[in-house]
Amino acid sequence: MAPTPTFALPPTFLALERPAADATKHIYGVPFDLGTSNRAGARFGPTAIRMASRMLCDGHHPGNWVDPLVLAVADAGDFTIALGDLTESLRLIEEQARSVPHLIALGGDHSITLPILRAVAARHGPVGLLHFDAHVDTWPDSIGQRYGHGSPFYHAINEGLIEPKRMVQIGIRSPMQREVYEWTRSRGVTIVPALSVHEEGVAAAAERARAVLGSGPVYLSFDIDALDPAFAPGTGTPEVGGLASWQAQAILRRLAGLAFIGMDVVEVAPPYDVAEITALAAATVVWEYLALSADGAG
Amino acid sequence: MAPTPTFALPPTFLALERPAADATKHIYGVPFDLGTSNRAGARFGPTAIRMASRMLCDGHHPGNWVDPLVLAVADAGDFTIALGDLTESLRLIEEQARSVPHLIALGGDHSITLPILRAVAARHGPVGLLHFDAHVDTWPDSIGQRYGHGSPFYHAINEGLIEPKRMVQIGIRSPMQREVYEWTRSRGVTIVPALSVHEEGVAAAAERARAVLGSGPVYLSFDIDALDPAFAPGTGTPEVGGLASWQAQAILRRLAGLAFIGMDVVEVAPPYDVAEITALAAATVVWEYLALSADGAG
Amino acid sequence: MAPTPTFALPPTFLALERPAADATKHIYGVPFDLGTSNRAGARFGPTAIRMASRMLCDGHHPGNWVDPLVLAVADAGDFTIALGDLTESLRLIEEQARSVPHLIALGGDHSITLPILRAVAARHGPVGLLHFDAHVDTWPDSIGQRYGHGSPFYHAINEGLIEPKRMVQIGIRSPMQREVYEWTRSRGVTIVPALSVHEEGVAAAAERARAVLGSGPVYLSFDIDALDPAFAPGTGTPEVGGLASWQAQAILRRLAGLAFIGMDVVEVAPPYDVAEITALAAATVVWEYLALSADGAG
Amino acid sequence: MAPTPTFALPPTFLALERPAADATKHIYGVPFDLGTSNRAGARFGPTAIRMASRMLCDGHHPGNWVDPLVLAVADAGDFTIALGDLTESLRLIEEQARSVPHLIALGGDHSITLPILRAVAARHGPVGLLHFDAHVDTWPDSIGQRYGHGSPFYHAINEGLIEPKRMVQIGIRSPMQREVYEWTRSRGVTIVPALSVHEEGVAAAAERARAVLGSGPVYLSFDIDALDPAFAPGTGTPEVGGLASWQAQAILRRLAGLAFIGMDVVEVAPPYDVAEITALAAATVVWEYLALSADGAG
Amino acid sequence: MAPTPTFALPPTFLALERPAADATKHIYGVPFDLGTSNRAGARFGPTAIRMASRMLCDGHHPGNWVDPLVLAVADAGDFTIALGDLTESLRLIEEQARSVPHLIALGGDHSITLPILRAVAARHGPVGLLHFDAHVDTWPDSIGQRYGHGSPFYHAINEGLIEPKRMVQIGIRSPMQREVYEWTRSRGVTIVPALSVHEEGVAAAAERARAVLGSGPVYLSFDIDALDPAFAPGTGTPEVGGLASWQAQAILRRLAGLAFIGMDVVEVAPPYDVAEITALAAATVVWEYLALSADGAG
Amino acid sequence: MAPTPTFALPPTFLALERPAADATKHIYGVPFDLGTSNRAGARFGPTAIRMASRMLCDGHHPGNWVDPLVLAVADAGDFTIALGDLTESLRLIEEQARSVPHLIALGGDHSITLPILRAVAARHGPVGLLHFDAHVDTWPDSIGQRYGHGSPFYHAINEGLIEPKRMVQIGIRSPMQREVYEWTRSRGVTIVPALSVHEEGVAAAAERARAVLGSGPVYLSFDIDALDPAFAPGTGTPEVGGLASWQAQAILRRLAGLAFIGMDVVEVAPPYDVAEITALAAATVVWEYLALSADGAG
Repeated sequence: MAPTPTFALPPTFLALERPAADATKHIYGVPFDLGTSNRAGARFGPTAIRMASRMLCDGHHPGNWVDPLVLAVADAGDFTIALGDLTESLRLIEEQARSVPHLIALGGDHSITLPILRAVAARHGPVGLLHFDAHVDTWPDSIGQRYGHGSPFYHAINEGLIEPKRMVQIGIRSPMQREVYEWTRSRGVTIVPALSVHEEGVAAAAERARAVLGSGPVYLSFDIDALDPAFAPGTGTPEVGGLASWQAQAILRRLAGLAFIGMDVVEVAPPYDVAEITALAAATVVWEYLALSADGAG
Repeated sequence: MAPTPTFALPPTFLALERPAADATKHIYGVPFDLGTSNRAGARFGPTAIRMASRMLCDGHHPGNWVDPLVLAVADAGDFTIALGDLTESLRLIEEQARSVPHLIALGGDHSITLPILRAVAARHGPVGLLHFDAHVDTWPDSIGQRYGHGSPFYHAINEGLIEPKRMVQIGIRSPMQREVYEWTRSRGVTIVPALSVHEEGVAAAAERARAVLGSGPVYLSFDIDALDPAFAPGTGTPEVGGLASWQAQAILRRLAGLAFIGMDVVEVAPPYDVAEITALAAATVVWEYLALSADGAG
Repeated sequence: MAPTPTFALPPTFLALERPAADATKHIYGVPFDLGTSNRAGARFGPTAIRMASRMLCDGHHPGNWVDPLVLAVADAGDFTIALGDLTESLRLIEEQARSVPHLIALGGDHSITLPILRAVAARHGPVGLLHFDAHVDTWPDSIGQRYGHGSPFYHAINEGLIEPKRMVQIGIRSPMQREVYEWTRSRGVTIVPALSVHEEGVAAAAERARAVLGSGPVYLSFDIDALDPAFAPGTGTPEVGGLASWQAQAILRRLAGLAFIGMDVVEVAPPYDVAEITALAAATVVWEYLALSADGAG
Repeated sequence: MAPTPTFALPPTFLALERPAADATKHIYGVPFDLGTSNRAGARFGPTAIRMASRMLCDGHHPGNWVDPLVLAVADAGDFTIALGDLTESLRLIEEQARSVPHLIALGGDHSITLPILRAVAARHGPVGLLHFDAHVDTWPDSIGQRYGHGSPFYHAINEGLIEPKRMVQIGIRSPMQREVYEWTRSRGVTIVPALSVHEEGVAAAAERARAVLGSGPVYLSFDIDALDPAFAPGTGTPEVGGLASWQAQAILRRLAGLAFIGMDVVEVAPPYDVAEITALAAATVVWEYLALSADGAG
Repeated sequence: MAPTPTFALPPTFLALERPAADATKHIYGVPFDLGTSNRAGARFGPTAIRMASRMLCDGHHPGNWVDPLVLAVADAGDFTIALGDLTESLRLIEEQARSVPHLIALGGDHSITLPILRAVAARHGPVGLLHFDAHVDTWPDSIGQRYGHGSPFYHAINEGLIEPKRMVQIGIRSPMQREVYEWTRSRGVTIVPALSVHEEGVAAAAERARAVLGSGPVYLSFDIDALDPAFAPGTGTPEVGGLASWQAQAILRRLAGLAFIGMDVVEVAPPYDVAEITALAAATVVWEYLALSADGAG
Repeated sequence: MAPTPTFALPPTFLALERPAADATKHIYGVPFDLGTSNRAGARFGPTAIRMASRMLCDGHHPGNWVDPLVLAVADAGDFTIALGDLTESLRLIEEQARSVPHLIALGGDHSITLPILRAVAARHGPVGLLHFDAHVDTWPDSIGQRYGHGSPFYHAINEGLIEPKRMVQIGIRSPMQREVYEWTRSRGVTIVPALSVHEEGVAAAAERARAVLGSGPVYLSFDIDALDPAFAPGTGTPEVGGLASWQAQAILRRLAGLAFIGMDVVEVAPPYDVAEITALAAATVVWEYLALSADGAG
């Protein structure tokens, strides 16, 4: 029988067909964007990331020659959310995340990370956080929204879900109130602005991240707007001056051996994407994570 | 001084600069789309409609030679809404609409019409409704949302805001549960499917509308998806087989003399638009309404 | 549990999850476009049509109040094709089609119809053909391609797969060699140009179709370029002056009771589409067919 | 040798390779849009129309079975224009047009028609005008521009280049100052609004045109915004409610036998086009004209 | 009252509502692109830059913790231009610029900088010029246009508006006649090609700029095509190999303390933009300038 | 006479009008994409590259002040290919390439390089290969296609057309089977991953290339997906983490003096491009090559 071309593969992540029961890591989509403050569309993120991921499904990872398909990972579908109801949706996301030992979430906007971290902390206790983003996302509220996409880490810190001293933010560059910045720093969070990555290099950024994250459990939250709009136009609140996708890859590959216990990639808004490049960037982040996990303690 | 080209006009509806205090009709944007069940983006509708409307601001209406600019209408800006909170937003919309004697609302998704009708009914009592749409919007709830964009007229009828026997729906064609259709008909609503307009003509449709609407106060709610996706691609829940924009114009022009007391145009989702054609269609509907009002009792 | 919003439904046709074994009609994608003579992209047609179809999955058909979901139809995935090899792909398509009693094919370019008709004729003998298209597709070869997308019906007639006297072509309008036109007519095929539909109306077109197709088995082949580029920009060889989507619907609904035994919708090229309107038009054609089949002998 | 696929044909109109010296009719591009009052881009019109026209180059016209390629027509390239200088450009266009016996001009914005008519009148005396447009284009000036794209026929009438009593405008629907309308009518011009075409039909419109144009020489000026934005989004000053492309075709085909002595198609603005549909519509207008000319006195 | 979401903010730069009379720096749009030699569209630049700027309006600048909103800056609307008339438009721009003490101009194409510099020099005498661009813009004429967008600095130098020895051009990379390059260098202008920035780094480029610009008054002219097309696709004459947006930011931030007396950002052509990324880049340049000005002598 | 603006230049590469007979280097388009495994569209590459190249046609190259127009190069049109037939098309390409002494091919997908190398080797014997790509393209077959776009160099090595020890691949980063990588390395091919270019710099990459390529004849094959999707979205099989266009330029400029004997640029898929940036990048690669050739032995 003829092999299947990319464009006809199953629309799952990496065209995975492994039953959920056979996996130790589970990919779920979280089609939700009510936490967004400007451009919507991340509700279509999971589908777009899966579609684009099929371009990556054939072959080993050229960094460490892992075949992501042989890892015990399954694409288990989407989480249920409540249309038009942010509070109930966050509750549903937490509830569903609680039953997943190692969750890889395809967002959705960044508000989904708070309920996921609640579930993660219930299993692992407070965790370290590797956070790629243009924004610190530690606003007490965002334009009146207490649990919107600008606030997940404000609450996660206050709720004790993450250890702020084991939290590093890479790619930061948006305008922000100085008080928000100072509060974040005062909790012990390490901030690596995008400009530091550009001027001091990826090795220095990775080294700082490794030093901060240490050997405890680490959760990766990757907001696609950490990348520059040139590399990720399909997002809701872009900021210029961001990372190139290779920089994100180069940092991640240097973090092999960390004890990753879950991840999300968020804020992919397909209506604003071009030729699927943002979705492909997000899919590649997950692919890098899978290769990393094969090396690490996860 | 050189006259101002279209592309440099003020970004208000028809480039209007009349102070709100000098007007008897007021245009407000309602940048809100949390009631949407599929594609979002109508939050950007008011801006897009205003921008496109500037192509219409110079000259008389060729149907009845009214100059819409001389009518006592002002663009008074946007209603305040509550980011991410449907319930509070609908409350705010109603509150603000209550103080506007003759409101022309630029949506926003169709969920905004319920609070507007509450305000309208508070002023006028139950009104007649001229409703252009692909969908009946009388679902008791839409995908779990009680006050989402599929339900405004279910509640409006139940709350006594409109007289269902003075309600006509033009352009209907979506799949729907037979019970929803029967409930709507059983209240006395007149349904003119899109296919009837195509096959029986615009004069027949207008005649039915005029017969139903009578001489009492009439509110116009124009969901842009009444138009075919060819004419209005920039919307959230398109349905093929819809009206051509000329058909909508031809029906509206035949309804001069009705006692219009307010209107909305909703569901323009600019991220899905092409060359501004959907926004221009929506702006044209308002322009037709202004010309109509000049003729009528409004 | 909260119901699932449109954007999170399974990416099957109408979000169908019925096992193939429980169905009497089967939907298959045919992701193939090597038969195209100009713009490619129909290889992505099946995915796009399925995605768009989810907007139609909730409710009865407003024409005859059938619920397409209760029909015994399943989405059984894609046919295997051979990348880059037209001959082998057509062979594979025929082979797979032979085992499907009632096939609903989502193309793919129009070259896929020949192998499908070979399979259909093997089961039913020569059939009647209801053919919507801008082109007659009876070229002996198209730009050197003997089995390209311009020739399926030349071969189907010559191979005795269809009864040309029970074949009607609706929407025809492209430039064509007069010899091709004369040959087609000389076989007994009835041609209803797009302009006839526009000027004489849908009832007349449907009547001619019904007269030609009679009571024997009928296969429907719907090339999306039968529609005007305004309604279906996402296609490979558009021609202006085409049908509005409502005209296609109005003709199809008048053909209830025919003995439909299979169908395809072809030539949807998503890279050229806008806001999914072409994919939605194609999905709607299949939805109309399902409703029709519920009425008819199929 | 293999025949050449559409996408590899020469980028001339209908892929014509006839030397200019062998032709009696000449196609020239006029890449000029300084007369535009809103969206620019018509400078790219000639290229886009030529590219799209290649989809029409193979076969007879299905209306009268003419092969446009056998007519003595050549694509002779572009007229020279002066970058950034409207006055000099119009002078250059006139100068070049004077040496072309039968000009088919691919615009460019509508300001190019005035210098072309000056050249036409120099050869033929005052001519009849068949004018498709959303706008009357008889403004004394447009937003301060005396010779902009809103004024060609004001000047053409005043300069005696056309016989206003032998001038018919089809598709008119934009807002306009009543004085402009009255002036135009008072000169004797026949105006057929778009709504008349929709409601009274193409046959009536064609009949009025034929009656007005009579047997003298006729120039065709086709502004692509005569078509509805659904059919022609790629233009600078769209107006909703316009013609379907089939309506334009149906009217033109009824005008066989008129003494056409030249034409232009203008206002195609490719940056706003979708899937080349506007360019294809414009190319089709020229193709219809060529078929017409074969029948007529031209 | 609920705070206003980004998408509903006033469409002014940074949503500014300060009256012009209360400001010492004034932002004006210059909706003009008749100086363009290839793709038009910069006439829509001011609107697009303002819209995108609203994403930046909330918070301090993370480089120096300035709040751009507290600076005495106002968005004072658009300059009047003369449609279709380059000469008169440049005259109008100069006239209006003369009355603005500290102008921040949102272009428009680069031809607008010459009249602005005439006004600047009238106030300050010859100034230093910090010029980001892919092109030197010192052509004596561009494709026949003496005052087109390729020539502003040729004239500015010849007219003594700028001190060429205090002029630095960063990002240069287009093809150019060697004579143009030599002439520019021979006047004393410092050219920093894009490739130098890439290979020698942003610190070296900033150092050269600072050395050249010295302590006198400095005008910033930022042609968005200094950025690579990946970062700024929405422009008229793109050149590959350009700056990343972070590089422009890193250079600008190193120039705090210079005596900036005005600026422009030009050549944003929204019809070619993607997801507003070019407009956002331009808005960010102005935001950087405002933060810089707070530090400096301006 | 006024000079011709960019947008009106002849649609040949750099608007060249030199007769083929007067040239020693010949540019041919190869409008062919049947070798593609995912997104099609490279059949439109030659046209798009030519159109975009016109932005580069005026002036000297700012690296070495060569005027590419004075080189003895001609744009000789397109190669004939056989629609829908990969085998015959590759045969035709080889046959035509054999008669071109120094070929510059505008692709088309990467499958075209094998027949070109057959022709090159027939003239020069086995050559060195400078290969920019995201993929090694040494798969024995790609998704069942023996001569698809993933395999040209597998066959070229096996057929002895290139000297693998004089072959360098720059930009490599896709997933690939470890066996494919090992096979490639085992033949002696030098692989410079994209990440090496990013982390070790362009000088190191160029040095390795120069060392490998030596003084013998060198063919350049530039797959546009060597660039990151941010810089080249318009391609069929993008991979994130790729080169910036300036990096490709910086490497190429360091390779002056090599004995280039031909080149191709492939995999430009215009349907996925944005504002022509991918086409412009491809045109720029050829422009760099022409400047290089002027310096070198070619």
